Amino acid sequence: MKKLTLILCALAATASMTTAQAQFAKAEDAIKYRKSALTVMGTHFARMGAMVQGKVPFDAKVAAENAEIVATLSKLPWGAFGEGTDQGDTKAKPEIWKDTAKFKAAADKLQVEAGKLAQAAQSGKEDAIKAAFSATGGACKSCHDDFRNK
Amino acid sequence: MKKLTLILCALAATASMTTAQAQFAKAEDAIKYRKSALTVMGTHFARMGAMVQGKVPFDAKVAAENAEIVATLSKLPWGAFGEGTDQGDTKAKPEIWKDTAKFKAAADKLQVEAGKLAQAAQSGKEDAIKAAFSATGGACKSCHDDFRNK
Repeated sequence: MKKLTLILCALAATASMTTAQAQFAKAEDAIKYRKSALTVMGTHFARMGAMVQGKVPFDAKVAAENAEIVATLSKLPWGAFGEGTDQGDTKAKPEIWKDTAKFKAAADKLQVEAGKLAQAAQSGKEDAIKAAFSATGGACKSCHDDFRNK
Repeated sequence: MKKLTLILCALAATASMTTAQAQFAKAEDAIKYRKSALTVMGTHFARMGAMVQGKVPFDAKVAAENAEIVATLSKLPWGAFGEGTDQGDTKAKPEIWKDTAKFKAAADKLQVEAGKLAQAAQSGKEDAIKAAFSATGGACKSCHDDFRNK
């Protein structure tokens, strides 16, 4: 049931992409927005990483707070990759607009994994959090490898 | 009770500022993060504004989604205004570090108003949303007037 909920959430987020695309007056606004959302998400994901890697002491409350922010932010950037936002101050590869189905699948995957991470973090179980963190990190890396220039 | 909850939330968010400040390796990371959080918050607040001002049709679900994001993001930027982050690619005025109590009060005010906005948006009542939107916008403007260069 939880899995179904996550899938439905991801589908709902994706369904709203078209609407979101129409909500930026200029391409540069969309680019600035998506980069900002990814920066905030990445910062909080890195804070979880510091705990998962033992660089800072594990704190279930802090992990849950960060995971919640990651899950919320994971839904946001994708609507800002609309047509005409491939040029400018962006590391986005042309593949995003060439293989939209694959990009959408990668964005969906991240949202599903980030949702699972937030659920794991709510449980407070360190092992579950580490596993979900790793899966989420894999979703980040896979998408960056395919769709982001260095 | 709701008001008390909001106040406690704001206090808790403020209490975690010191911890958050230690979480940026470089001043430029903190500046990039806080600007990003404010950009995401501002984008979703502007989407609510378009509805409140009648530029797009009122949609209670969309209003609630945007208000929730605004409330979540309203908690984030403040921990990134630590010592040593007054220089660089930032419009932050020196007053932030000269009058920390006033800046903290302004940040707290925004979080309280954004929390009320999310509650109003949950209710789906357009009038309540408009009033809370206006109060939140007032908190944005007041803080920008005092603490952000043009």
